[in-house]
Formats: sequence, structure tokens, C-alpha cells
Amino acid sequence: MTPDEAYQWLVQHSRETTYLKSMGRVLGWDQRTHIPEKGHEHRHNQFAMLAKWIHLRATDPQVGEALARVEASDLVADPGAVAAVNVREWRRVYDRATKIPQELAVALAKATAEGETAWERTRPENDWETFKPFLAHIITLKREKAQALGYAAEPYDAHLDLFEPGETAAGLAPVLEELRGALIRILEAVQESGRRPQAEVVRRHFPVAAQESFARLAAESLGYDFAGGRLDKTAHPFSVDIGPGDVRITTRFDEHYFSQAFFGTLHETGHALYDQGLPAEHWGAPRGDTVSLGIHESQSRLWENLVGRSLGFWRFFYKRAQEVFPVLQDIPLEVFHFAINEVKPSLIRTEADEVTYNLHILLRFELERALMNGDLRVEELPGAFNDKMQAYLGLTPPSIGQGVMQDIHWSAGLFGYFPTYTLGNLYAAQFYARAEAELGPLAERFAAGDFAPLLTWLREKIHTQGNRLWARPLVKEVTGEDLTPRYLVGYLARKFGALYGFPAEDLARR
Amino acid sequence: MTPDEAYQWLVQHSRETTYLKSMGRVLGWDQRTHIPEKGHEHRHNQFAMLAKWIHLRATDPQVGEALARVEASDLVADPGAVAAVNVREWRRVYDRATKIPQELAVALAKATAEGETAWERTRPENDWETFKPFLAHIITLKREKAQALGYAAEPYDAHLDLFEPGETAAGLAPVLEELRGALIRILEAVQESGRRPQAEVVRRHFPVAAQESFARLAAESLGYDFAGGRLDKTAHPFSVDIGPGDVRITTRFDEHYFSQAFFGTLHETGHALYDQGLPAEHWGAPRGDTVSLGIHESQSRLWENLVGRSLGFWRFFYKRAQEVFPVLQDIPLEVFHFAINEVKPSLIRTEADEVTYNLHILLRFELERALMNGDLRVEELPGAFNDKMQAYLGLTPPSIGQGVMQDIHWSAGLFGYFPTYTLGNLYAAQFYARAEAELGPLAERFAAGDFAPLLTWLREKIHTQGNRLWARPLVKEVTGEDLTPRYLVGYLARKFGALYGFPAEDLARR
Repeated sequence: MTPDEAYQWLVQHSRETTYLKSMGRVLGWDQRTHIPEKGHEHRHNQFAMLAKWIHLRATDPQVGEALARVEASDLVADPGAVAAVNVREWRRVYDRATKIPQELAVALAKATAEGETAWERTRPENDWETFKPFLAHIITLKREKAQALGYAAEPYDAHLDLFEPGETAAGLAPVLEELRGALIRILEAVQESGRRPQAEVVRRHFPVAAQESFARLAAESLGYDFAGGRLDKTAHPFSVDIGPGDVRITTRFDEHYFSQAFFGTLHETGHALYDQGLPAEHWGAPRGDTVSLGIHESQSRLWENLVGRSLGFWRFFYKRAQEVFPVLQDIPLEVFHFAINEVKPSLIRTEADEVTYNLHILLRFELERALMNGDLRVEELPGAFNDKMQAYLGLTPPSIGQGVMQDIHWSAGLFGYFPTYTLGNLYAAQFYARAEAELGPLAERFAAGDFAPLLTWLREKIHTQGNRLWARPLVKEVTGEDLTPRYLVGYLARKFGALYGFPAEDLARR
Repeated sequence: MTPDEAYQWLVQHSRETTYLKSMGRVLGWDQRTHIPEKGHEHRHNQFAMLAKWIHLRATDPQVGEALARVEASDLVADPGAVAAVNVREWRRVYDRATKIPQELAVALAKATAEGETAWERTRPENDWETFKPFLAHIITLKREKAQALGYAAEPYDAHLDLFEPGETAAGLAPVLEELRGALIRILEAVQESGRRPQAEVVRRHFPVAAQESFARLAAESLGYDFAGGRLDKTAHPFSVDIGPGDVRITTRFDEHYFSQAFFGTLHETGHALYDQGLPAEHWGAPRGDTVSLGIHESQSRLWENLVGRSLGFWRFFYKRAQEVFPVLQDIPLEVFHFAINEVKPSLIRTEADEVTYNLHILLRFELERALMNGDLRVEELPGAFNDKMQAYLGLTPPSIGQGVMQDIHWSAGLFGYFPTYTLGNLYAAQFYARAEAELGPLAERFAAGDFAPLLTWLREKIHTQGNRLWARPLVKEVTGEDLTPRYLVGYLARKFGALYGFPAEDLARR
């Protein structure tokens, strides 16, 4: 095989693997929306079969041979060329797949399946003692996995790299520490302000049918293409990229809480806008794929928070909301806008606001880093979790189910995943600031219902770039700066300073 | 490999292929129920990829080697043993797949895709001249395919065998000719009777929501397990067996025609009851699969017609129907029952009643047999079609779109498919007669809402047998007799004799 033939073989191989994954996504969507009760066992078998085929393809020695041939050629001379981007990622995935011993992969699959089941069973009972050995076993195996994969400076880096390629704990820690200090100061300023929104106005009666049509209107206005997607109801909202022309979102409704479905829909819309903007001509190869979980999350958070919870957005949508929801008719815009932006420390991460959410993530990052590096034992985890909750949020979980056992992630073997949520927020704020620097202030555009300039900008700078660059270089290219917490801190300080009446500048600058 | 190892390899190979097909069925269901408009192109690409993989697996030379090893062993000594059944079918499928030259397979895929598109475009315009060359090309290729496959006595047999293994035109013709004579006599007796049902009673206003809940009630009463299935709306009703615990049906509703959705649902329920009754422990191998299209159709027709259009069935359901549909409150049971059993020659096959439906099939069988055997040229087809319509049904199509161009089948390359509809009716009547001989009269059971004895009997005799026997031997084993038109003719003569007031015995016996 010539290098050129080897490259074409890799393109085809990659595309066929992506077809398998894409079929799995149809199966996954169906499983969460329509599958009959008795169909789950067969569906699990289908997934197991898919996983086997995908693993066989990922570790096929022919991939290694073809890669070696292309890498030794001038096809990859220019790192920005499509071939070089694809080869860079294929190499990463191939090395990762072939470095894990088969027994370890099997043991991890088993341990995490059992871990999730144990978590589901023990959490409602606050039964840490029963859950602990499952978690301890997973941590042992994940530490073995880090050794097998290799890492930059510490075992945790191997895990981080799975979700955020190239990211390291040492690179991330100073950014997050600076963020932590600023968030704690903003939270103190919020609490000292004495102001509180009338939070009950978003907890009135919002009929589900009206919520649904209003959420659809918003998603469509932001640019989500319903001819290439759909919105369904599921217990846990998600977005799924089945392939070009088919990117679906779901949401869940609470008749007594407006924010649940609405901001959930905007969040998934943000994810979907990214997928709908990927370059279809590169579908099936890394050049046509997304960058990382963090960059994906940046798109969902940007549309959910920086756009969807902004005053400009509601200048356009609030009149429409008042038409659809009579319970809002007596509520002024500013009161509503404050209510959807309430900052209040809470026990549960998934219910947290824009300020405290990242504190939930930071403490998890610190804990999982220590666990993976062997600096914290599982026995010490509940105490360490509660100490940090008290230090960052001023709360002590009344039960372990509302404490360290609240998230499924670790029981599913997901270490290094949590930081991508906060990275998403950091990237989002930095991208958004750059968009405004280039496009001018966006609030007035939003107030006129004009979201196209922002989407067009994101499409050009990020979506159509596929996985050409990893997250940090992408941030640098798009914004002209390295990743910094300054934009997120500045945005939060200004926004919540205005709402709660404290001077933003001091907090942002300190 | 020992014969035992070769057999186990084949089991695994067959199961993995079936997983691929099973994923395709989820994709197909989604395509017909939920896919967004712009998702079709990607879905076609997914199907093309699946077809490629399935073809590669079907023609894998390792299959041939493993088969040869097992066939030379005593694993297949007892033809009723699971291994022998599986090997029999794997051999059939492998030979079929490997006999077709790659170029012919590609040419046929292309010609039929283009043929379907041409049919969709030209039929509404009654544009036979544009459509004709597409059809002629398909027929040429299908005749080549028959040569490649080989056949019992005439080229048409090769096509028949694809859908109804072991069936031949020479074996089928005398059965169908006897049936044709009897059907024409029954139709004459109906027309000479001077009686007519009040057909308008099923063409009143039937709200869709009420139709849906009533159809669900009926499907569930017959034994369809909704915990392992679901009922959705689609433009063209179908049932799909995704796998154990997941067999779905769809229907379509016409608010001004009761029979559309109701009998459509019963028809698909019949298909689904068969699939839900297959032996799950053999899933992925022929022993766990269905026999043929004809046997599948026998189950749908049995529940739709022999059960669902019987007076006993409505003795139980009519009171419930009257509660759900106020427009039926002034209509006596017998009037309603006659209305759902109107016999009236019509131009369109899919709208035909129990008597005339088979005449539509018989003329298609005669025409496609002649086309495949080279006894009829495409140019002669419209005339031949109209002549037979006149001879069998006394009608002449006013346009070719309502004539020979009404069905998609031939444009999709489906020759040898039509007879399976009438075979389904023949098998159904013969099975049903045997069930009553063993279980006693069923009408009284139905009138009490008791459908379980019939389903249990079908489960034992047919569903759980998988593909242990081909259709003819299965009919022989279950009923003790070779396939005969006598039961279908007797059933139709008695039923419509009672409704239209003519002596059944003469017609059935002549």
C-alpha cells in the first residue's frame, strides 16, 4: 500500500466504524424514548455486540500498519491539513485502544456495570458501606488503566485526557484555583447583598403543552433546525448526533417549574447546534467530529446561560412568554429575569445556579484527582466531600445520598469527566467575549430576536472546524488568548453584581 | 475445527448477522415513524453500509468451509434436530448468496432502486411508456438471476423459492386454479343474490382517538403483549420483529372508515403474535426464525379475517364498539357484521375483500410467471392485466395507474412475492379448520372473549416451531393433510353463503 492508499483505507475504516456508532445512537435514542419494557434485554445485547465490533475495529493491527505508513509520508507534513488532523486522532484512539490489556477492559466493563447497579440500589438507602467496595474496586482498576495508558505527570492526567485531549491536572489546577477564589467572593457578595429574587414566580403553574411549544419556539429561534432534528420527552434530557441531517434533542417537563424544561431545552439546543454545524463532508473522520466534552459543553452553556438567561434574550421572549403563560402576566420582566438567575448554594450539583455550579465541580475535581493519584483513600471520601461542601458552599449534606453519592459518574467509572463541565463554562465565557469584541454588543441583537450573527460566528470559528484543533489551541486561535478564568469571572461578577447590587469590578479584578 | 466447533462457529456467525439485521429493523422502524425530513439521506447510507456488511458475512468462504465440515458429520443425521434445521437453512442462504455474481447483485440493486423511483413518479401520471423500460430492465436482470440461482422446472421457481422455500409454480398452479374457479363461482353467487350490506355504517365518523384505544383493546385481547411491543401510526402499516421482547406494530387511521385502522391493526397483530411466539432461545439461528412469507401471512390473515371478521368475535366486541362509537348505537350487530364483510369487485388489490382479494393475486401470479418464463413480453402486460381483470372480476381499469401500475412490487424487483398472500389465506383456513377440529367450535369462545385457546394452539403448533419445517411439510404436520384449497373455499362459501343467502355446500363441493 502506498501512503495514499493507506490513508484512503483509514478513511474508509473510520467511516465504517462511525456508521456502527451512528447506528448505536439510533438504538440509544430509541431506548430512551420508545422501547417497550421487555425490549431492554435485547437492546443491551445489541449494544454489547456493537461494543465488541467497535473494539475489534479500533484494535485492528491493520490500522497500526496503515497509520505507520501515512505518518512516515509527507501527507501529514502540514499539521492543519485534513489528513494530518485525521491521522493525529486515529493514532490517539488506536494507541489508547491497544494499550489497555483485554483482561483490564473486561474487568472495567464488569466493575462499572456492577458499580452503576450498586449505586442505583444503595443511594436511596444512603448505604455507603455497601457501595464503598464497588467504588474502591473501580478506583483500583482505573488506576491500573492510567498506568497502562501512561500519563503526562500524574495518573489523573490519563483520565482527563480521555475526555479533554491534551489537558493536564497541572495545567488545569491554577485556572480552577483562581476561579474558585473568585466564585467564593462572588457568592459572599451575593449573600451579603441582602437581595433575593421572587423565586416563586418560576414555580407557578406552567401547563406542559404550553411549555413544549414555547421551548420549541425558542430552540427554533436560536437556529436549531427541526427539519434535521426533533424534540422529545425523556426522563433525562440529552442530545444525540445520529448523523448529518439528524440531530435530536429531548427534555423533561415539570408543570410547577418553568426553568426545568426551558433551560434544559436551550442546553440541549446548544449541543445540537454544534452537531448541526459540523462539516458533513468530513463525516466519519475526526476532521468532521467534535473536539471534546468541554468544547461541546461550551456550546450548550453558552446558549443556555450567556444567551438564554440574559436580559437581552428576555427582552425579546418575555412578551411571548406572557402570552403563553397567563401566570406571568402580572410579573415585570426584571422580576422574572432575576428569578431565573437566583444564586443560592444548594446540595445537588445538577440543580445549582451559574455561580455555585462550578464550586460543585471544583470540589469533585480536587477529590477525584486525589483518588486517582493515591492521595485520598475511599474511606476518607465522604468526610473530604463534606469538608469541601462546607468550605466552598457553606453547606453540610444531611445524608450521603445528597452528599458524595449524589452523582452516578464515579460509579460508572467516569473520572476526569467532571472538569469538562467547568471547562465548558470557561470556554463559553471566553468565546462569547470574543464574539462580542468582533460583532459588537449582542444584547440589542437578542432583544430584536436576532440570534443569527452569534450562531454564524460560532459556526465559522468552532463548529465547521470539527476536531482540527484540541480545545486549548482552539481557544487560542479563536480568542487570541490562552484559556483564562478572567472572562467567566468577569461575566458572572458583572451579571450578578447588577442583579444583586454589588460592584462587579472589584470582584472580577482581585 | 471439529464439526462441533464448526457448528458453534456457525451459530455465532449467524447470531452476529442477525444482530446486524435486528439493528437495521430499529433503523427501519425509526425511519417510518420518527426520522426528521433531512435524516433520510444518512439513513439510506446506514442501510447501504448494513447491506454491505450482511452481504460480506453471507458470502464469507469460512461459512462454506464450516458448513461442509458439519454436513459431513452426524450432527445433521436427524433432520428434525436443531443443528440439522439450522444447517439446512444456512446452506440455502449461503448457496443463494454465493451464486449471484457481484455485478448482477449491484445491477439489480441499482435497477430496483431506480425502478421504485420511476414507479413513484410515473404512476400518478399514468405514464406507462416512461415506466416500461425500467420494468423491462428489471425483468431482464431477474431472469438472469433465476439462471444464476438455478431452479426446479422453470425460471419463475427460483423467485418463488426466495419467499416460499421449496414452493414451485407447478406445485402451486393446480391449487390456485382450483381456487380460482371456486372464487369466481362464489363471486357470481354473491352478485346473483341481490343482497347488499349497508356498507355506509362503517363509513360514518369514527374519531381517531377512539379508534386507537379500541384497536389497542382488540390487539391486547387477542394476546398481543404491549409490554413487549407498541402501536404507532404510519402511512403504511407494518409489524417489525426487532428481537425478543420487542415486536412492534403500526397502523393508519381514517376517521371516516372504521375498517382501515381496525382490521389493519388486527392484521399486524397477527404478524406480531407469530414473532412474539418464536422460541427466543434459538434467536439468531433459523430454528428460532419464521418459516416464510406465506406462513407469516397466514397468521396475519387468520387473526384479521377468520377471527376478526367473524360473528363470534363481534358478539364479544360489538357492545364495546357501540360504547366507544356512538354512531354505531342504532346499528344491530348483524348489520354491522355484514357491512365489514361486504364482497364487491374493486380495482385496487389492497382494498379488496376476502373473496376477490385472491383473484387479484391469482392474475398477478399468472402474469409474473409468464414474464419470468419469457412467455409474456412487457409490452403485452397492460393488455394481459386488463383481460384478466375483466375475466376474473368483471372490471376494466379506467387508467393504468389503477391497473397494472397499481402495485410497487414489480418495480421493486419483487417477483414470486404476490402468491405468498394467497398462500397465507390458504394456510390460514387449513390451520383454522384443524384448530377447530382439535379444540371444538371457536365462535362461542370468541363470543366470551376467550382467544387464548386458539393462540395457545398456534403457539404450540406453529410459532414455537420456528423454521423447523418449510411451509408445505409444516401444513402436513399440523393438519395431517397436504395443502388444499378446500378449507379456504369451504370457509368462504359458508361464511358468504350465510351473509348473502346462497347454499354453500354446492359451491364448496363443485
